[in-house]
Amino acid sequence: MTDQPFRIAFLLYPGVTQLDFTGPAETLARMPGAALSFVAGSDAPIASDCGLSVLPTATFDDDRAFDMICVPGGPGCTEAMEDAATLDWLRRQATEASYVTSVCTGSLVLAAAGLLRGYRAACHWAWTDKLALFGATPVRERVVIDRNRITAGGVTAGIDFGFRVIAERCGRDIAEAIQLGIEYAPEPLSGGTPDSARPEIRDLVTAAINQRLADRHAAIDRIAARFAAG
Amino acid sequence: MTDQPFRIAFLLYPGVTQLDFTGPAETLARMPGAALSFVAGSDAPIASDCGLSVLPTATFDDDRAFDMICVPGGPGCTEAMEDAATLDWLRRQATEASYVTSVCTGSLVLAAAGLLRGYRAACHWAWTDKLALFGATPVRERVVIDRNRITAGGVTAGIDFGFRVIAERCGRDIAEAIQLGIEYAPEPLSGGTPDSARPEIRDLVTAAINQRLADRHAAIDRIAARFAAG
Repeated sequence: MTDQPFRIAFLLYPGVTQLDFTGPAETLARMPGAALSFVAGSDAPIASDCGLSVLPTATFDDDRAFDMICVPGGPGCTEAMEDAATLDWLRRQATEASYVTSVCTGSLVLAAAGLLRGYRAACHWAWTDKLALFGATPVRERVVIDRNRITAGGVTAGIDFGFRVIAERCGRDIAEAIQLGIEYAPEPLSGGTPDSARPEIRDLVTAAINQRLADRHAAIDRIAARFAAG
Repeated sequence: MTDQPFRIAFLLYPGVTQLDFTGPAETLARMPGAALSFVAGSDAPIASDCGLSVLPTATFDDDRAFDMICVPGGPGCTEAMEDAATLDWLRRQATEASYVTSVCTGSLVLAAAGLLRGYRAACHWAWTDKLALFGATPVRERVVIDRNRITAGGVTAGIDFGFRVIAERCGRDIAEAIQLGIEYAPEPLSGGTPDSARPEIRDLVTAAINQRLADRHAAIDRIAARFAAG
C-alpha cells in the first residue's frame, strides 16, 4: 500500500438494489486509504429499489479515473445493460482500474459491456446461468476472484465481497478488525441459498421470480442475442 | 395481517451509519404490505458516514403516524441524542407505533428520549453498557425483543433485525423466502464479536475506539448525567 488514496467508484442507476452497493460501501469505506465515489449518468438523485433515493457524487462526464469500479445489481439492471453511456463508461474505466467488480445482477451489466468474456464470475443465484450468454463462466459461489475481476452473488453477498477485497489489499487482520468494528457476526435463519433452502420455500421463490420476472428473463435473452451477433 | 399498509419510518440524521438503516430497509421493503419512509428534520439531503447522501421522504413536521419506527446509529448519534426536535418526534411516534426499534447506537438515541427506560435492549458492543445510564438493561445479543421494543447490535445486526421483524409479523416461511431472495447466506471471516475475535484484533479495535471516540464517550456521559438529573 502507498499513501495514494484507493479510489473506488460504485455505479448508480435507477432501480438499483441499494444494499448491493451500500453493503460493500460500508465495509470498504473503512479500508485504509479508501476514497469512495458514487457515479451516475447525471447528478440527479437516483431512485433505488426500496423507496430510498441517493445522490451521485460524480458523473460519467467528469471523466475521473478509479482504482476499482463496482457495479451493483437490481431491477434496473436490464436498462443499464442497454444504456450506451453506462457501457462506455464501464469499458473506459476497466482499461485502467486495478479491480473491475460487481455484486448480484451487476455482473450482467459488466457482462453486457463485454467485460466478463473469458472470466469466471458470480451473480444472483436466479440469474447466474445468464452469464454464459455473454461469454463468461458462471460460478455458484458467494465471491469469485478471477484475475482482476471480483464478482459476488446476490445482494447480501456484497458485504462478504467487501471484506474479501479488504483482505486482498490489506491482509486478513485489517479485514477482521473492520468486521469487528461493524459487528459482522451474522445470525441468518437457515436457507439463504437454493441448495440450503427448504424445498417448499425454494419452489415458492423460484416460481415467484419466474412469473414476476419473465420480462427480465426475456430482456436479458434479447440483449444477449444482440451481444452474440455483435 | 390486514390489507392496511404497514408503515415503517427510518429516522435519518447527519452522520448516520448508512448500513444501520439500508440493511433493514432492504429486508423490510420486501415484507408484504410494507411502506417505507425515511424521515428527517428537514427535506435536505442527509450526509451519511461514508460519503453517500440520501434524500428524506418525509419530515418531522409532516406529523405522519407510523406503525414502526427505527432509529439507526452512527457517528452523529450524540448530536441526535441532544436534538430536541428529534427526541420530540420519537416520543410522539412511540405513543402510537406498534414497534419502537433501533439498530446499533440508535439505541442510545431511543434511550436519550427516555424510550428504553425499564426495557432490555441491545446496542453496538462498544456502547452497550452506556444504555444503563438511561435506565435500560443492556443485553449483549444480536437482536433483543422486549414487549414492543426491538433493538439490535452493531451495524450489520440490522439485517438480522429486519428478518426477525418479518418473522414476528409474517411468520418464518415469509422471512426465509425473503432471505433466499436476497441470498442471505453470509460467509463472514471469524471474529465479528468481542468474544469471538482474536485477542490481538479485539485489543486493537478497542484501543482505537477508546482513543478515537473519547469525545463520544464523554458526550454520552454528559447527556446521561443531565438525563438522570431531569
